[in-house]
Amino acid sequence: MTGTLYGIGAGPGDPDLITLKSLKVLQSVPVLAYPAPDDGDSLVRAIVDPHLSGQQEEVVIRIPMVVDRFPAQDVYDKAVADIGAHLQAGRDVAFVCEGDPFFYGSFMFLFGRMAEQYPVEVIPGVSSLTAAAAVLGAPLAARNDILTVIPAPLDDASLSRRLADADAAVIIKVGRHFARVRAVLNDLGLDHCARYVERATMSQQKVLPLSDVDDTNVPYFSIILVHKRGAAWQ
Amino acid sequence: MTGTLYGIGAGPGDPDLITLKSLKVLQSVPVLAYPAPDDGDSLVRAIVDPHLSGQQEEVVIRIPMVVDRFPAQDVYDKAVADIGAHLQAGRDVAFVCEGDPFFYGSFMFLFGRMAEQYPVEVIPGVSSLTAAAAVLGAPLAARNDILTVIPAPLDDASLSRRLADADAAVIIKVGRHFARVRAVLNDLGLDHCARYVERATMSQQKVLPLSDVDDTNVPYFSIILVHKRGAAWQ
Repeated sequence: MTGTLYGIGAGPGDPDLITLKSLKVLQSVPVLAYPAPDDGDSLVRAIVDPHLSGQQEEVVIRIPMVVDRFPAQDVYDKAVADIGAHLQAGRDVAFVCEGDPFFYGSFMFLFGRMAEQYPVEVIPGVSSLTAAAAVLGAPLAARNDILTVIPAPLDDASLSRRLADADAAVIIKVGRHFARVRAVLNDLGLDHCARYVERATMSQQKVLPLSDVDDTNVPYFSIILVHKRGAAWQ
Repeated sequence: MTGTLYGIGAGPGDPDLITLKSLKVLQSVPVLAYPAPDDGDSLVRAIVDPHLSGQQEEVVIRIPMVVDRFPAQDVYDKAVADIGAHLQAGRDVAFVCEGDPFFYGSFMFLFGRMAEQYPVEVIPGVSSLTAAAAVLGAPLAARNDILTVIPAPLDDASLSRRLADADAAVIIKVGRHFARVRAVLNDLGLDHCARYVERATMSQQKVLPLSDVDDTNVPYFSIILVHKRGAAWQ
C-alpha cells in the first residue's frame, strides 16, 4: 500500500494562517518534508513548528540558493528518492511550503516528478499576495481590474511594459532585484502608488514606501504592490 | 468601547479551507455578517456553517444580483448602518466572504466606507485561483511566468489581447460570459490549454474541458485556467 504525498501550503508566515485541512494532514502524517537553504534554517519549518508534536520523522530538502532559485535538477532527484522511499514503505508524507504549493512554489518540481508514480494531493494555502494586501489595508483588485503578477527577475523592458499595462500589479521575488524594480517604477511615475511589504504576517514584517527601503538588504520573501487606482487604498 | 470589524476570507468552498486565525475570530465574535442574494441562501454562510455554534446574531446583507454584481450604493449604505450599530454598541462583527476579502471581494466596499471610522482587521483567505489549480493538479504559475487575472466581463478585444500576452491566465467571474470567453479562447487557439472549474473544492465541484461546458448554466463562481506551458499540467 503506497503512501500519499500531500503538498501543503503553510500560508504566508503567521502560523495561524494555515488552513484547518492542512493542519489535520500535518498533524496526522508520520513524515514531514520541507525545503531549507543549504546553510540555514527552514522558514516554512518555523511557520509550522507551533503545530507539530515533535514525533514525526523529518526530511529536509536542502536547496542551494542559486540565482533566482532554480536549483540544479539533482537536488530534486535526491528529494524524490528520499520521499519516494517513505511512500513506497506505505508512509504518508506532507511536504510543506510557504504560501500556496502551486503558486510559484518549489513543490511543483516535486509534483512534476512524482505525480505519475504516487498518489498526490495538493491542499491550497493563503498566498503572500492577499496576505500583503491585508497587511496594507489595501484591496488587491476590485470590479473588473486586470491584476498582473510579475516576477522581479524579468528584464527592465518586460517589467516596464507589464507594469504600464496593468490596473493592479504584484511584483514577487523582489530580493536582490529591488533597486532595479524601484528605478522602473520611478520611470513610470508609479512609485507613489507602490508599497513594499517584507515578510508579510510574520513577526519581522515590514511595510515601507519604496523610498525608505534599504536596497542592499531585501529578502526573497518581499513583494511590491502597485495600485493604480489610489482610492482603493488611500 | 467601539467593536472591531473583521473581514474574514472563508476560502473557496471546502469548510476546512478556512484558516485557524479566521476560525478563532469567527467563533469568538458575537455578530456574524455575510452577503446573500436577494432571493436565496448565502453561499458563504453555508461554507462556515459547520464551524458555528448557532448562538451568534447574524446580519444578512442582501445584494441584488444585478449585472456583473456591482450593486447599488444603497445596499452598502444599509449594511454600514446595520454593522455600525453593533460596532458602536461595542460588539465585534465578523464579515465573512468567499475566498479572500481583498481579492475582488464584496468586503472591500464595506472596508472603503468603514475603515476610517472603525477599527478594521482583514484576515486573508485561500482564493479560488489556487484552489482551482490544486483541484486540476496543475501549477498556476512557475519560475518567471507572468500570471494575469482577467475578469470575464471585459470586452472581447481586451480579453483577447490580455490572453495573448500572458504566460498563464485565470479568467474569473465567468458566469453568463462563458460562451463569449470560449469563443475568444478558440480564436486564439488556446482552447486546448484551458480548463473550466466550477465551485472548486465544494461538493458540487465540476472540472471540464471547455467544449463540454453547458454555456446556458455557468455559475458566477466558475473560473477558467489557461496554461500555455502545457507540460506544467499535462
